[in-house]
Amino acid sequence: MANMLGDDLKGLLNERQIDTPVARVVRALSGHGAVSTSQIARTTGLARSTVSTILGDLRRSALVVEVETRSPGLGRPALAHSLNPEAGTSVGVLLGLREVRIILADVAHNVISDVSMPFERDYAPDRVIRSVKHTIDNLYKEHSLPFSNLLGVGFAVSGPISPAGRIMPGSMLPNWVGVDLRALFEPVLQKPIFADNESHCAALAEMMWGAAIDVEDFVLFKLDLGVGGAIVANGRILTGAAGTAGEFGHIVHDPQGPLCRCGNRGCLELYCGGSAITDLAEKRLRRTTSLAEVVKGALAGDIGYRRLIEDAGEVAGRGLAMVGTILNPPLFVISGGLAEAGEILLAPLKTSYERYTLTKSQSTSDGFAPRFVVGRFLDNDNTMGAVGLVLRHHGRLT
Amino acid sequence: MANMLGDDLKGLLNERQIDTPVARVVRALSGHGAVSTSQIARTTGLARSTVSTILGDLRRSALVVEVETRSPGLGRPALAHSLNPEAGTSVGVLLGLREVRIILADVAHNVISDVSMPFERDYAPDRVIRSVKHTIDNLYKEHSLPFSNLLGVGFAVSGPISPAGRIMPGSMLPNWVGVDLRALFEPVLQKPIFADNESHCAALAEMMWGAAIDVEDFVLFKLDLGVGGAIVANGRILTGAAGTAGEFGHIVHDPQGPLCRCGNRGCLELYCGGSAITDLAEKRLRRTTSLAEVVKGALAGDIGYRRLIEDAGEVAGRGLAMVGTILNPPLFVISGGLAEAGEILLAPLKTSYERYTLTKSQSTSDGFAPRFVVGRFLDNDNTMGAVGLVLRHHGRLT
Repeated sequence: MANMLGDDLKGLLNERQIDTPVARVVRALSGHGAVSTSQIARTTGLARSTVSTILGDLRRSALVVEVETRSPGLGRPALAHSLNPEAGTSVGVLLGLREVRIILADVAHNVISDVSMPFERDYAPDRVIRSVKHTIDNLYKEHSLPFSNLLGVGFAVSGPISPAGRIMPGSMLPNWVGVDLRALFEPVLQKPIFADNESHCAALAEMMWGAAIDVEDFVLFKLDLGVGGAIVANGRILTGAAGTAGEFGHIVHDPQGPLCRCGNRGCLELYCGGSAITDLAEKRLRRTTSLAEVVKGALAGDIGYRRLIEDAGEVAGRGLAMVGTILNPPLFVISGGLAEAGEILLAPLKTSYERYTLTKSQSTSDGFAPRFVVGRFLDNDNTMGAVGLVLRHHGRLT
Repeated sequence: MANMLGDDLKGLLNERQIDTPVARVVRALSGHGAVSTSQIARTTGLARSTVSTILGDLRRSALVVEVETRSPGLGRPALAHSLNPEAGTSVGVLLGLREVRIILADVAHNVISDVSMPFERDYAPDRVIRSVKHTIDNLYKEHSLPFSNLLGVGFAVSGPISPAGRIMPGSMLPNWVGVDLRALFEPVLQKPIFADNESHCAALAEMMWGAAIDVEDFVLFKLDLGVGGAIVANGRILTGAAGTAGEFGHIVHDPQGPLCRCGNRGCLELYCGGSAITDLAEKRLRRTTSLAEVVKGALAGDIGYRRLIEDAGEVAGRGLAMVGTILNPPLFVISGGLAEAGEILLAPLKTSYERYTLTKSQSTSDGFAPRFVVGRFLDNDNTMGAVGLVLRHHGRLT
């Protein structure tokens, strides 16, 4: 039963050329989780009556199930539709700086498992292939799930990825530069492979389940050890010609500044990235520390740590002001480990944004100034986004 | 006959909620001019056979005509389809710095008339309303066209426009700030009103007929008296929350630089805009001149004028390098009066772009470096784009 369902679903989700109304409804369900008939009609552009008929057929063939959703507050639970969780699963893999993390989820957007494997820094591809394959096999055994219903594997990578799936220079994974992700993983996993860089995946997670649900245009700004981000326009994540759209960490902050690993001088990341912060803490405050400890210390009142985060916020706001002048988005989602500092980071960031950007909230009375919110997934946004790649069919490598 | 056609066309083009296959085909024809069956199938996502059937029906009702198109070179002319030129017309209006320009075109994308009316600088709205109405009426009389078949009027404005059609602070037309374009023109013209800022319109013209045909992602960079631009992502022009997306002239070039009219310091426009260039020519070279004369002089070998343009190119390239780092587009269309200088501008611009941007052509061997081309419409891109607003149904004010 589950296998037959899986075959139906694969056909409808993976064959991009089939632009039938049924396939559009199934893709909307896959991309959005539990949704109402009206939401599906809005997303697909189909008439409500057409959507109802299709949902009826899909329920009869067990591809779709009815679920109750409850909005915050009082009121009756609303009826929504979701793909049958038994119809398929999706795996997201983070190729991180020092870990490989794997999340297994079903097509109804339930997380079944979330495992992290530590790796030494600068790990090489060959060891990862075996670990990933082994871990995925075990997860399917452990949860008694049919591997045949795995719809695809999404990869979130610390570094830019070309549209064809090759890891580009500038990646935080030096041993992976030039690697073709599909050529590496498809023969082993025998499943469709999806990939995008980890900040783009983070944006997808915030769009699907986090701080930017139903927001068609926003910018994700990620302040972690490195600085990166993503641009979402008309509901789609921009990848860029070489996969480097949203690399805000390499906006030139000072053209006479220190040399950056990217080959430019004075990049934003050198002033407000987590590595710059811990370096300074070590040099000036004589404390060997991690980014998480700096944030924790600042929140607990340590004035040295607090100042480091405030100064990072000031510089970050200047860089973001350029992004605002260029893109004028209605929403910034501030993400990454540094965002855990909350207002200690956000207050100076917003002040310098306002000072250096074109459209100032002082001069626009009608709500045109952007909102700044902290992301919902500060810990596992990238891996959740890798799951989302498969569910939203973004970054499919062919 | 023409009137009946016009009514049919209006229904299919203007009612956004009707997402029928027929409406999709008609919109593809309106947006693209003369196109083949396969191109329509690609644009609409409909099956080729469905498109053929629909085109047959539309030809029988005279809404569509067959035309021959000839690609450059040898070979038989290809058969394409276009909307019947008698089925409708569209008007584009430029509200420029010192002129109001009006282009009348039919739905087959033929320009019927192109008139320019000089206005004194800082002209006020009330005089323009009457002129526009009067000129449009006369054009329809002169060409014996039924006014009833006018599908809409598009406005290209020197300055940002809010999504609701209000002219925003920062406009080059100080007397128009706060003006609601729809409230102003709809009662007089009694037609659907479309509007966007002139650089966004310029991008539309380059997409429809110019240097970026069939390019889904590009950046238009306009170097004229002011500096502006537009971002096209997935085939759509980004407007931004306050209408200021693409205002590249206000990227901060030097945070300690001179005050800009926007309220920031050291904006890019103050270093590479045409006004900055003619100001310097006057102060340092002691010559009162226009941007066109500077460009003409430089092309003729004047070393002072040449240096002014080269220096502007260097600064412009730095600003564009930030746009490249943030967006990573595959194509830059360089537009505006300064682009007439060709390589005198482009050579230093590309050199400094390469120096300051993240994805350098030196480090990417696989064609990921962006192309730079000069726009096709350096003179009337904005007014042509205003016509395009109506044909592409972009920027409709409701």
